[in-house]
Amino acid sequence: MHARPIALLTDFGLDDPYVGQVKGVLARLAPQSRVLDLSHGVAPFQVGQAAFFLAASARHFPANAIFAAVVDPGVGTDRRVVLVRLDDQFFLAPDNGLLGLLLCPRALAGRTPQLFSVTPSTPPASTTFHGRDFFAPLAARLACGEPPESLGPALAPSELVRSPATTPRPLTSEDQGRRLDAHVLHVDRFGNVVLNLQPGELFHTLIGSGQHRGVPASPRAVQTYADLADREVGMLEGSQGLLELAVNQGSAARLMGCQVGHTVTLTPGRI
Amino acid sequence: MHARPIALLTDFGLDDPYVGQVKGVLARLAPQSRVLDLSHGVAPFQVGQAAFFLAASARHFPANAIFAAVVDPGVGTDRRVVLVRLDDQFFLAPDNGLLGLLLCPRALAGRTPQLFSVTPSTPPASTTFHGRDFFAPLAARLACGEPPESLGPALAPSELVRSPATTPRPLTSEDQGRRLDAHVLHVDRFGNVVLNLQPGELFHTLIGSGQHRGVPASPRAVQTYADLADREVGMLEGSQGLLELAVNQGSAARLMGCQVGHTVTLTPGRI
Amino acid sequence: MHARPIALLTDFGLDDPYVGQVKGVLARLAPQSRVLDLSHGVAPFQVGQAAFFLAASARHFPANAIFAAVVDPGVGTDRRVVLVRLDDQFFLAPDNGLLGLLLCPRALAGRTPQLFSVTPSTPPASTTFHGRDFFAPLAARLACGEPPESLGPALAPSELVRSPATTPRPLTSEDQGRRLDAHVLHVDRFGNVVLNLQPGELFHTLIGSGQHRGVPASPRAVQTYADLADREVGMLEGSQGLLELAVNQGSAARLMGCQVGHTVTLTPGRI
Repeated sequence: MHARPIALLTDFGLDDPYVGQVKGVLARLAPQSRVLDLSHGVAPFQVGQAAFFLAASARHFPANAIFAAVVDPGVGTDRRVVLVRLDDQFFLAPDNGLLGLLLCPRALAGRTPQLFSVTPSTPPASTTFHGRDFFAPLAARLACGEPPESLGPALAPSELVRSPATTPRPLTSEDQGRRLDAHVLHVDRFGNVVLNLQPGELFHTLIGSGQHRGVPASPRAVQTYADLADREVGMLEGSQGLLELAVNQGSAARLMGCQVGHTVTLTPGRI
Repeated sequence: MHARPIALLTDFGLDDPYVGQVKGVLARLAPQSRVLDLSHGVAPFQVGQAAFFLAASARHFPANAIFAAVVDPGVGTDRRVVLVRLDDQFFLAPDNGLLGLLLCPRALAGRTPQLFSVTPSTPPASTTFHGRDFFAPLAARLACGEPPESLGPALAPSELVRSPATTPRPLTSEDQGRRLDAHVLHVDRFGNVVLNLQPGELFHTLIGSGQHRGVPASPRAVQTYADLADREVGMLEGSQGLLELAVNQGSAARLMGCQVGHTVTLTPGRI
Repeated sequence: MHARPIALLTDFGLDDPYVGQVKGVLARLAPQSRVLDLSHGVAPFQVGQAAFFLAASARHFPANAIFAAVVDPGVGTDRRVVLVRLDDQFFLAPDNGLLGLLLCPRALAGRTPQLFSVTPSTPPASTTFHGRDFFAPLAARLACGEPPESLGPALAPSELVRSPATTPRPLTSEDQGRRLDAHVLHVDRFGNVVLNLQPGELFHTLIGSGQHRGVPASPRAVQTYADLADREVGMLEGSQGLLELAVNQGSAARLMGCQVGHTVTLTPGRI
């Protein structure tokens, strides 16, 4: 039997020695486990971006993977740490909304997650680096076969912290003509702007009017980038399952001045 | 027997979750294979830069490595995908010139590559993310022992797409006094400018006159950086087998305003 | 028995193909060894920063790890290359101060390192890329079980090159009222400024006056970021064992204009 692989998702970046130290700890404590980098490029403290990365990626990873997701503005406070079992995958994360997109009804699709509170009772060695001193050792214990039940008491999904940015919503016919605020979860290297919106029944006939910091846009729902005119902002279902604002061979983010954490106001069906 | 290692070369960067998802897929489908990052820092869509990275690196990798090289501006169109066997290494790439430097006569040195067309007949799950949904599963099938012949029909080298930027040329005595356009394949972190030129018999007596966007330079052929005067632009054979413009303890790219994809005009032997 | 893991620390960055080629060589020559990235984000030629990364990280890595630390402004000259055995870990580095923090009395804590000179007698294939052509093969030989004694003659610790930036000093009561120059070893992604100072008996009552390029600061010794007022520059023991200048939810580096390699002048106990 193979040891469970461990996937890392952090906002540590790759220039500091932080990710290296986390990997050192994992190599010491779970030498049989393969370590996979989901990404360390989450913008500092952007929980919504991490939530998106995690929800969009989990199904592409091995069925027995352990995810340690450490984007943790509340490190050092008494914030809760959560362990989720979903099918045979495990997820470790601070309870700050990071699991919101993974555990939304559409993503769960009828599956029932098991939740555990694994908040440390005694503070780990370092008060500022829980990724290395708390999350990595905990992931290693799971990888070595320790059952989640032994790590902390059960938790009800309703007890989790939720935030608007990590609560996705489908675009339905009821949104027609209504203003809605969409959160910018991610801007990828090509300038595509990922929103916390799911394609719904309204989507394929959508012509909206959007506004970001005074910059108006009329995102038309399209199938691929090539359907867009020059410098036209369109909306399409991205490779990650959420709606994206996009410009053909250009950067929608630069055109509209969007950054991760911003809000875009949309009025579907109106132009 | 060890499973074949898989080496990845992309323009995905490391901030998005894209590379992580590719690695997730490989860990699922080819769990015995070691995954090696050649680089994910190719500038978006810079096929020439990727061609250079691949050709310069292949011989340093294990003799049985599988390379998946995904710099693919034509993704979603009907561009061909190619599989090359060279000795016991495999190379997967879109047919856009990316294999041009690897398969040039000097790099082949008499070896005969086998080529196969492995273009997908039915489009993969995502129309925009073939790296994850097509190249990674294909690399995994090769890693698990599937023979290349079973993946697609043979192809003649002459059928491959070629581009000027990925066709290297040796500097010969015939270039004396002739203007030639060299393509900037890469600018490394130290500011060295890699050109699609190979050292030839002319090289070691070369004093050229170069021009880039109006900035003149007189690159002298030298052995090492230390042979250059302060702020002098020199030309030397880099650690990667091609000619580089360089400045001692400085950035030739910044001095001349060069970027990947630019063209530098040179007149060897004239100053 | 497991093969020894190999940890890499370089200033190569991840955009060029250099790190990929080093990993290719290691996968060829030491296929059983796991390769761990400590970091490749050391600023070009910043030996002090690399010294800090190495000393802060070694104890988090496996007890039998081999570290190859290649920040090597003197590559191509006749600078010495050193191999250190400390407990059961090995360290390969150019002799330029990079090992200064690892081998300082406080870090050694009574342990006795063994040193060997492993400078290549014949130059490696490439005169500019010793990381790939010399350090990686040497690390692979150690990983495959070759004893350090067979790689070169013993060396006394006193023979090592030392530099002020990689010689840490504790803050003692004798520093009260004395001006001292502290070196900026690292600025992390959050803007914390790591100095080559160790907390000492003076530390917890410290109120200093600092100056960096004319910008005055009065760093107060605190336990955590939250103890600081808005935009107040504080000094605390970081997760890496050295003193850091920090601003609560802000960047001390930006506030003071500090960069890696700079010097900060401090007068402990005076304000």
